[in-house]
Amino acid sequence: MAKGAGSQRADDRGALLPKQAREIFRAGTVTHTSGYSRGYAQANLITLPQKQAFDFLLFAQRNPKPCPLLGVLEAGQVSSELLADGDIRTDIPLYRVYRGGQLESEIPDVRDIWRDDLVSFIIGCSFTFESALLDNGVPVEHIAQGKNVPMYRTTIQTNPAGVFSGPMVVSMRPIPAAQVADAVRITSRYPAVHGAPVHVGDPAAIGIEDLNHPDFGEAVDIPAGTIPVFWACGVTPQSVVMESKPEFAICHAPGHMLITDARDLQYQVP
Amino acid sequence: MAKGAGSQRADDRGALLPKQAREIFRAGTVTHTSGYSRGYAQANLITLPQKQAFDFLLFAQRNPKPCPLLGVLEAGQVSSELLADGDIRTDIPLYRVYRGGQLESEIPDVRDIWRDDLVSFIIGCSFTFESALLDNGVPVEHIAQGKNVPMYRTTIQTNPAGVFSGPMVVSMRPIPAAQVADAVRITSRYPAVHGAPVHVGDPAAIGIEDLNHPDFGEAVDIPAGTIPVFWACGVTPQSVVMESKPEFAICHAPGHMLITDARDLQYQVP
Repeated sequence: MAKGAGSQRADDRGALLPKQAREIFRAGTVTHTSGYSRGYAQANLITLPQKQAFDFLLFAQRNPKPCPLLGVLEAGQVSSELLADGDIRTDIPLYRVYRGGQLESEIPDVRDIWRDDLVSFIIGCSFTFESALLDNGVPVEHIAQGKNVPMYRTTIQTNPAGVFSGPMVVSMRPIPAAQVADAVRITSRYPAVHGAPVHVGDPAAIGIEDLNHPDFGEAVDIPAGTIPVFWACGVTPQSVVMESKPEFAICHAPGHMLITDARDLQYQVP
Repeated sequence: MAKGAGSQRADDRGALLPKQAREIFRAGTVTHTSGYSRGYAQANLITLPQKQAFDFLLFAQRNPKPCPLLGVLEAGQVSSELLADGDIRTDIPLYRVYRGGQLESEIPDVRDIWRDDLVSFIIGCSFTFESALLDNGVPVEHIAQGKNVPMYRTTIQTNPAGVFSGPMVVSMRPIPAAQVADAVRITSRYPAVHGAPVHVGDPAAIGIEDLNHPDFGEAVDIPAGTIPVFWACGVTPQSVVMESKPEFAICHAPGHMLITDARDLQYQVP
C-alpha cells in the first residue's frame, strides 16, 4: 500500500486515471510525471498572491503561445474540474517555493505555507502536442534520445502586461524536412497548448547562438536532414514572473507536473 | 468633408481601412458598422473599473465561447495594436454608459466621463465567423432576410468567476441539413470568435420555448429543410456584467462596433 509509484512499471503508470495518479502523489510519492496517465493533459503550476493575479492573467491573455491557461483557481479555491476531488496543495509530486523571486525550498506538500489570498494558474504543457506529433508519425528527437527537451532564451519579446515582461523562452525539436509541414499542421490544431511553431530554421535569427548549449533542459543530437523547429515554451511565464521578484510564489518542480482530468484531445481544434 | 459616413455607399464602406473607418466615427458620424471594412474583425466593448477587472478577465478565460477576448486595455491605456493610433473613448460610433447596471445615456464620445481606473475588454463578434460561413457557401438567413440575428437566453449556465455568473445567451442560425456539418467545421476553426456551435436542433432542450420570440434581435423565418443551430453569443458577457450591477460601465451600443486592425482570417486555425 505504501509502495512508491516510482517502482511502478511504465505500463502501469500510463494506465492510471488522473485521479489515481494524484492520489499517489498526495500520499507522498515524489517522481517525474512523464508517462503517467496517457492521453490526459499534464500542466504547469504558478501560484501567486492576488495582488499580482490580474497582471498575470492579462499576461496569459496577451501571450497565449508561451502561456496557455487551462484553468485558474481563485483565491480560496484549492480544487476545480481540472482536478476533481483534488487539492492543488498536495496533488503535484513536488513544489518549488519562492520568496522575492528566490528559490526557498522544494517540498511535496504546501498546505503548511498556504495562504487564502493565493491564486493558482494551471498552464498547458508541450507533452500534449508531443503526443499528437508521435501519434501522427512525426519523430520527437529528445524523447527518442531519452533526454529533456532543449530550451533557449530568445530575442523575441513577450507582450508586456502590468509588472510582467521579458523575452520568450522556446523549446526546439529537430524535424525531418519532409515533415515540417505536418508538424506545423498538427501543432496548429492545439492553440490551447502552445500551438504552431514561432520560428522554423535559423537559430541566430531569434538570438540563439549555439543549439548545443540550451539555457534549460538538455542538448539533443540534430540528425542529418532535419531542421530546427521552435515552439513557445511554458518556461516563459515562470521566467517572466520570477524576474518581477514577487513577494511569494509556488510553482511545480520541473518535470513534476499536475496531471489533470482534461484529455489531450479536448484541446484539439477543429 | 463633414459629410456623414451614413451616406457612403455600401461598397465604399467595405473598402475603408479600419483606421479610416475609426477616423470617420471619431469625427462624429453615428452609424451601425455592418458592412464596414470588409475582412477586418469587428468587436464588442466592455469597460469596467479595475475593481471588477480581474473577475471579468477570469470570466472570459472560463467562458471562451460566449466571451472571446481579442484584447484588453489596462487602466490608463486608451489604445492598443488592435486600434493603432486610435482612442477607445472616441473611435466607436456610439457608446452606452451604465451606472449601477442601469443605462444612463447613449453618447458618441466618452472622454468627458473617462476615468483612469477603467479597463477595457475587446470581445470578438460573430460577424467574423458569418463572413467565413458566407465565403464557404453556407447561407446566413438573418443576413439574407435583412434582419438582426435572433438571440435567446438559455438554461445553459456559464462558468462563474468572482462576482460574475448567469445563463448563456445564444444566437441562432437556421442551417440546411446537408450543410450543418460544414457550419460546424467552419466555425470550429474560429475558436477565438465564439467557435463551434453549443447546440444543434431542439430549442426546448436548452430552455428556448419559442424560436419566434427571441429575447434580443429579431425572429427569422426558418426555411424548410433547415435545422436551428445555436452559437454562444457575445451578448452573454454584457448581460452577466449588468446583472452584477457594477458601479460604472461603458459598452458599445448594439450594432455600433469597434472596427479593429485584426483581419478576420487572423483568428482562423489551423
